Amino acid sequence: MNAPATFDRDLRADFPGMVTHDGQPWHYLDTAATAQKPRAVIDAMARALGEDYATVHRGVYARSAEMTLAYEAARRKVAGFIGGHEDELVFTRGATEAINLVAQTWGRANLKAGDRILLSQAEHHSNIVPWQMVAAEVGAVIDVCPLTDDHCIDLGAAEAMLTERHKLVALGHVSNVTGALLDAPRAAAMAHKVGAKLLLDGCQSAPHMGVDVAALDCDFYVFSAHKLYGPTGIGALWAKAEILADMPPYQGGGAMIDRVTFERTTYAPPPQRFEAGTPAITEAIAFAAAVDYVEGIGLDRIHAHEQALVARLRRELAAMNDVRLFGPADSAGIVSFAVGDIHPHDLGTILDESNVAIRAGHHCAQPLMDYLGIPATARASFGIYSTEADIDALMAGIARTRRIFGRG
Amino acid sequence: MNAPATFDRDLRADFPGMVTHDGQPWHYLDTAATAQKPRAVIDAMARALGEDYATVHRGVYARSAEMTLAYEAARRKVAGFIGGHEDELVFTRGATEAINLVAQTWGRANLKAGDRILLSQAEHHSNIVPWQMVAAEVGAVIDVCPLTDDHCIDLGAAEAMLTERHKLVALGHVSNVTGALLDAPRAAAMAHKVGAKLLLDGCQSAPHMGVDVAALDCDFYVFSAHKLYGPTGIGALWAKAEILADMPPYQGGGAMIDRVTFERTTYAPPPQRFEAGTPAITEAIAFAAAVDYVEGIGLDRIHAHEQALVARLRRELAAMNDVRLFGPADSAGIVSFAVGDIHPHDLGTILDESNVAIRAGHHCAQPLMDYLGIPATARASFGIYSTEADIDALMAGIARTRRIFGRG
Repeated sequence: MNAPATFDRDLRADFPGMVTHDGQPWHYLDTAATAQKPRAVIDAMARALGEDYATVHRGVYARSAEMTLAYEAARRKVAGFIGGHEDELVFTRGATEAINLVAQTWGRANLKAGDRILLSQAEHHSNIVPWQMVAAEVGAVIDVCPLTDDHCIDLGAAEAMLTERHKLVALGHVSNVTGALLDAPRAAAMAHKVGAKLLLDGCQSAPHMGVDVAALDCDFYVFSAHKLYGPTGIGALWAKAEILADMPPYQGGGAMIDRVTFERTTYAPPPQRFEAGTPAITEAIAFAAAVDYVEGIGLDRIHAHEQALVARLRRELAAMNDVRLFGPADSAGIVSFAVGDIHPHDLGTILDESNVAIRAGHHCAQPLMDYLGIPATARASFGIYSTEADIDALMAGIARTRRIFGRG
Repeated sequence: MNAPATFDRDLRADFPGMVTHDGQPWHYLDTAATAQKPRAVIDAMARALGEDYATVHRGVYARSAEMTLAYEAARRKVAGFIGGHEDELVFTRGATEAINLVAQTWGRANLKAGDRILLSQAEHHSNIVPWQMVAAEVGAVIDVCPLTDDHCIDLGAAEAMLTERHKLVALGHVSNVTGALLDAPRAAAMAHKVGAKLLLDGCQSAPHMGVDVAALDCDFYVFSAHKLYGPTGIGALWAKAEILADMPPYQGGGAMIDRVTFERTTYAPPPQRFEAGTPAITEAIAFAAAVDYVEGIGLDRIHAHEQALVARLRRELAAMNDVRLFGPADSAGIVSFAVGDIHPHDLGTILDESNVAIRAGHHCAQPLMDYLGIPATARASFGIYSTEADIDALMAGIARTRRIFGRG
């Protein structure tokens, strides 16, 4: 796996964001935060906002009917991308809203005082705080699964912790800090054995590997468009049809109702029940364009490409005496590290001078930072457009930073 | 007011959506459902998704810092547009989410069993269902203010209904069905006199007249970008700073926290407290571009232009014996009507053949339809790009429909 799999053409040319404002190549290594957008997505957005624009689900004129077809085709496309059915796919504002939706609808309807929720020490705040909020409301208790020595979720420990009181297990499919991949089918089997549901935060898996919710056997799967080369302002909640069918509505408003009177209001079936108000119409269409783009390249090739880059970067970083590497050796597209006692923010700032963009911080995972005993990590994360040259520039920037700090 | 105020230039040329796919002028009279977008908005969106794209609030690299400045400048711009301060402006998925946010945070914290909420018979479902949901949760009661003979909210009746048990009055500033304009300062005075807060649904006012939340003296004001010539997927909640400061968080996740541990999580101050997860970054920037566009033309001129069109259309419709007109004579940008016993959907479908797009239906206001004793109305609504030619085409289409139905 020394040489990254190469694509048929230079994908960077598809991404207008991959050059700096003065025309230099940008070494963008922050795809785990948000991905750059290919021109196909930007063009789909512009067309939907322009000559194709109309509202959905309501108009009696042709263009509105066409827009409705495009919006529902987008739902079908996004659902199919993860092996789901369109009836099971709710468009949300993002993955964060998707988790909150589950917590506030399924959670409030199904969690009682004394029930337990199992999370892990490695979760993103978006997969912690919504559960803390609903747990506080209903009197449920949160358990925290520890990590293995290489910072993977310790499913052996999880199995020992799970009881009949556990109603939900909510885990990141891939950690946004370490890139550690969860053995989701095993987690699902363990959860289901005690009668609990499994929610997977798929933000860092959907863009980087083939995902099939049936094979994963999860009950809920959430992901965002903007990390998948798509627009901001939209994400998706997939849930098993029979679970969605029993969930009470989330937000009230237009489009999610069956019939409104002041005496009694009845609600539409899923997925409409969970999509109050005018939806993010053009975002849904651009989301589908992003899925088209990614599928056109192929998730297997993307995964192989990114894994090769990870392997090289980890190898080169590990060769430095004072570098600490987090996560497992086969971390998926993400490498978190620390260079001696150089603060990650200082490293990030100096790298920026060489047009290298990494993330430095707690990555919305403060409990994981506490667990690791550090305030922050430096994180390089790869995408479809990442190249060997990005690693060259990163390594040169790290060497320069070490010289500046007298650690050379 | 016979001749509409004219603008300095042909605004229709700014809107790529205002032609049909085969290059004909499109007589788009459904702006109350959603507005077409000027090229300035589409270009701002494309630029933000392209060469300027980065995440906000997190990156240590320059482009992320620039994007953060742009995002916060958008907040300042949108807040200023309605006379508010940036600290008081929360970006939401849309107006519907904004009302749900108030219901689920302020409402759940401040409404108790036996408390009362005053709505009106003319409200949009988005200003009914969220209150029904929170009322059911806490045991509060909803009162419904009747309408005057010309379908305006009867504030005299409202005054007689209000008691010390009322904690909230939630009303549409302009009705999305009839275009009736609320006397908001009077409603505010009445609400405040009994200690209640006033929420205004500004979806149909913000795009069509100058709005100053201080002059209106409301406590909450919500509106959407997509009805204001901006993108889908974003809207705004404005609330008085001291009210926002006391509101518990809405969704949990990244960006809205101060510090997360599994023992105890603390939250950021407003407005960040209410913006969990990666925000609708490019939508916020395009929203600000829409505000720039509208301000560049001037709300007073837009209002005069649309009022002149309303006056002409109402006059011509009133001249037909079998046309029923809803709402007051000075309805703001919106004309709802019925032509004899022709079903509005049939009218809308036939008009579509002449490239005239109106809305036919209950307009997400079924209680108002019940009140009027009809299942649906036909609705023509105007925008910045509407012209006399649109009315000519509409009137010709109505005449044609009458002939088809033998009502000529």
